[in-house]
Amino acid sequence: MTDLLIRNLRPMGASACDMLIRDGRIVRTGTELSADGADIEDAGGAIAIPGLVEAHTHLDKTVMGMGWYENTVGADLQAMIDNERAERRRLGIDPARQSMRHALALVGNGTTHIRTHVDIDTDHGLAGLEGVLETREALRGIVDIEIVAFPQSGLTVRPGTAALLDEALAQGADLVGGLDPCGIDRDPKGHLDTIFGLADKHGKGIDIHLHEPGALGAFSMELILDRTRALGMKGRVAISHAFCLGMPDWQRTEALIAALAEEDVAILTTGAPSREVPAVKRILAAGLRMGAGCDGVLDTWNPWNRPDMLDRARIVAQRNNLRSDADVIAALHVCTAGGAAVMGVTDYGLGPGSVADLALLPGTTLAEAVATGGPVALTVKAGRVTGRNGRPLREAA
Amino acid sequence: MTDLLIRNLRPMGASACDMLIRDGRIVRTGTELSADGADIEDAGGAIAIPGLVEAHTHLDKTVMGMGWYENTVGADLQAMIDNERAERRRLGIDPARQSMRHALALVGNGTTHIRTHVDIDTDHGLAGLEGVLETREALRGIVDIEIVAFPQSGLTVRPGTAALLDEALAQGADLVGGLDPCGIDRDPKGHLDTIFGLADKHGKGIDIHLHEPGALGAFSMELILDRTRALGMKGRVAISHAFCLGMPDWQRTEALIAALAEEDVAILTTGAPSREVPAVKRILAAGLRMGAGCDGVLDTWNPWNRPDMLDRARIVAQRNNLRSDADVIAALHVCTAGGAAVMGVTDYGLGPGSVADLALLPGTTLAEAVATGGPVALTVKAGRVTGRNGRPLREAA
Repeated sequence: MTDLLIRNLRPMGASACDMLIRDGRIVRTGTELSADGADIEDAGGAIAIPGLVEAHTHLDKTVMGMGWYENTVGADLQAMIDNERAERRRLGIDPARQSMRHALALVGNGTTHIRTHVDIDTDHGLAGLEGVLETREALRGIVDIEIVAFPQSGLTVRPGTAALLDEALAQGADLVGGLDPCGIDRDPKGHLDTIFGLADKHGKGIDIHLHEPGALGAFSMELILDRTRALGMKGRVAISHAFCLGMPDWQRTEALIAALAEEDVAILTTGAPSREVPAVKRILAAGLRMGAGCDGVLDTWNPWNRPDMLDRARIVAQRNNLRSDADVIAALHVCTAGGAAVMGVTDYGLGPGSVADLALLPGTTLAEAVATGGPVALTVKAGRVTGRNGRPLREAA
Repeated sequence: MTDLLIRNLRPMGASACDMLIRDGRIVRTGTELSADGADIEDAGGAIAIPGLVEAHTHLDKTVMGMGWYENTVGADLQAMIDNERAERRRLGIDPARQSMRHALALVGNGTTHIRTHVDIDTDHGLAGLEGVLETREALRGIVDIEIVAFPQSGLTVRPGTAALLDEALAQGADLVGGLDPCGIDRDPKGHLDTIFGLADKHGKGIDIHLHEPGALGAFSMELILDRTRALGMKGRVAISHAFCLGMPDWQRTEALIAALAEEDVAILTTGAPSREVPAVKRILAAGLRMGAGCDGVLDTWNPWNRPDMLDRARIVAQRNNLRSDADVIAALHVCTAGGAAVMGVTDYGLGPGSVADLALLPGTTLAEAVATGGPVALTVKAGRVTGRNGRPLREAA
C-alpha cells in the first residue's frame, strides 16, 4: 500500500487543494498538507474524479495489437457470434495476452475497476476464463477485474455449456452471464432456469446480456424478475444493454422500471448508437443502479469502440441527448459511481476513508473535462500511480 | 496554382505510388514519377482519399477558443434557439473570428469543402453573413466555403427576416435555408412559399433543416417536393437532418424516398445519436445524393461535436450500425464524394484531371484509416499543402 501526497488537484472541479493518501486510502484533502514521507505528485490543477468504472466489456476478445481485422460479416447477431467462434482459433486470439492489452489500455485511460464478460462455449471450453484469470492476477493492485462467465454462443442450444459455466464459477468467475433467452436459445424458461440455478448453487450474482427489443425484451425481463423474486436475489442481478427499456411504449416501460427498482436490478448500458437504449435520466430518477461500459473493443464484431470510459461517457450522453453541464456530469456519474454501485465496490469516492482510486483530468470545469478533455493525466489505484497521460505505466506484451 | 509531386501514397488504400499535380490538378499517378521542378512531399505510405467534405455545419456559432461555455439550457429546440440569440451578444461571438477558427480546424482535419449555414435574424441582421464572407475570402485557395442564408430564429414568425434573407442572397449567400416549417414557424405554407420564392428570384438552391419527426416531417417533406416540382428545381434542393426518413413506417418512408429520388433532392445527415436518422445504405441504394456534416461545433447548443469529418464518418457509421469494412467505406463515401455531389463540386476525385483536393491518412487499409486512424497526415487543396498532422498550416487569430 502506498503513501502519496497529490498537490494541486481539484476534486470534481472544485478549488485546488492537496490530497493525502496513506495505506491506499484518502486521509484528507486540504491546503498545504505535509507529505511526511509520502511520495509527492503535482497534479498541476487537474480535476480529480473517482476512478472510472468499465462495467461492461469483453477483455477476452479484442484483437488489439494484432493488426487490422478485415470484417466481412456485417451486423447479424448470430452471424457475428459464429464468426467470432471460428476466428478465435484462426487468428490466434490469446485470451491472456489480449485481456492484458485491453485492461492496461483502460488503466491508461483512468479506469480502476472492470467487469468483463468472458466467453464460455463448447468449442473453447474455459480457455477464455483461464487467460483472463491470469491477467486478473497479474494486474492485482493495478485494476480490479470482476469476471462474468458468459455463454456467448448460447446455453441450452449447445449442450455441455451449462456444465462449463458451472466449472467456470467453481474456478473463479464472479458472476453468471446469460444472453437473449428468446433470441439466441429460443428457450427462455430453459435458459433462465439454468443460469439462475447456477447462481443459486454458487451463491453468485447474475449479469445477463439482453439485446431483445420491445415486447420481446420486456417478456424476457419479466421472466428475469420472476426468478429474482423466487430465489431472493434482490440486488444481485444486473441486465446489460436492456434495449427494451428504450421502447416507445412508456406505460409498459415505466411498469418494468418500477418492477426492476423493486428488486434492485441494476442496468448496464453502452449507449449503443444504433439501438433503442434505456434512458439514463429516467433510470437514475427511478433509483436504479446504472453503470456503463465500452463493450468489446477492436474485435471481430466492429471496429468502433475505444477502451476509454471518458469517451463512453460522451457516447452515453449523446445517445441520451444530454447537453447541459449538469447532464454531462450525470453521464460521468454512470461511468464512475454508477458502475461502482453495480459492481458493489465499497469505499468508493473522494471523501476521507475512501480507497484512493482516482483519475485526474485536464480541464477548467468538470463538464469541460468530460466533454472535451483528455488524455487522462494520471490514474491512481489505491494510492499507486498506474497511468500517466493516457498510457499505463506497466506495458503489455 | 501549385505543382507538387507526392511520393509514396496509396490511393484509397491501394498499392503505393507517386502522384503528380500541376496547376492544382492531378496529372497522373504512377511509380517513380519525375518531379520536374515540382515541390516534393513524401507521404510515407499514407492512404490518400479525396478531400473531406463538411456539408452541414454552422461556422458562425462556435465558441472555440473563447473558454468553456457553461450550458444550462438543456435540449428544447426553441429554448436553444432563443438562448443562442441572446448569448451571441453577451459572449461576443464574432462571426469572422469564430468562423476562421472553425474552418481552419476543419482544414487541419482534412477538409477541402464546407457548406455552412449562417444565422440571419432580426436581432443580428447580416452580421453573421458578413463575418463568414470575410472568412471565405481570406481562405480562398485553402478551403471552398458555400454559404446558406439560414433563418435560425424562424421566418414568418419574425417579420423582417424574409427581407434579410433576400438581402443576404444579394450579398453573396449561395443558397436559401429554412427550418422546420411546422415546428418553428407553425406556418408550413407561408415558410416554404417564402424560401422557394427567394430561391426562384435569385436563381439559387435550397438547403432546409428538417428536424420534424415521423408524420409531421413527412408532411413538410411533401410540401417541399410539391414546390420543387412546381418551380422546376429538380436537383437544386437539399434537406438536412431529415429525421422523418428514420421513422419506423417503412411503407411511408419508401414512398418518400422514391419521390425525393424523382426530384433529385439531396439528403444531409449528421448521424444524430439521439434521433431517428435517414438510413445511409437505403438512401444511397435509392440513388439519392447524400452528404454529411458535423453540425455546430463547441457552441451554445452542445459540447459534443468535433470539427472533424473522419470522426463524423465514424458517428454516421455507428448510428447506422455499419460494421464491415465495406460498410465503413460507405460511411466515408458520404463524407467525401457524397457531400461533393450535394455541393455540386466538379472534377472531384483521385483520377487524372481531378482538382488535387486530398487528405492523407495513416493506416494499413482504408477501413482501418477511417475507423481508427488520425490525425490526418496531410491536407492538400488544389495541390497546395494546407494542413499537417491534424493542424492547419495557417493560424487563426
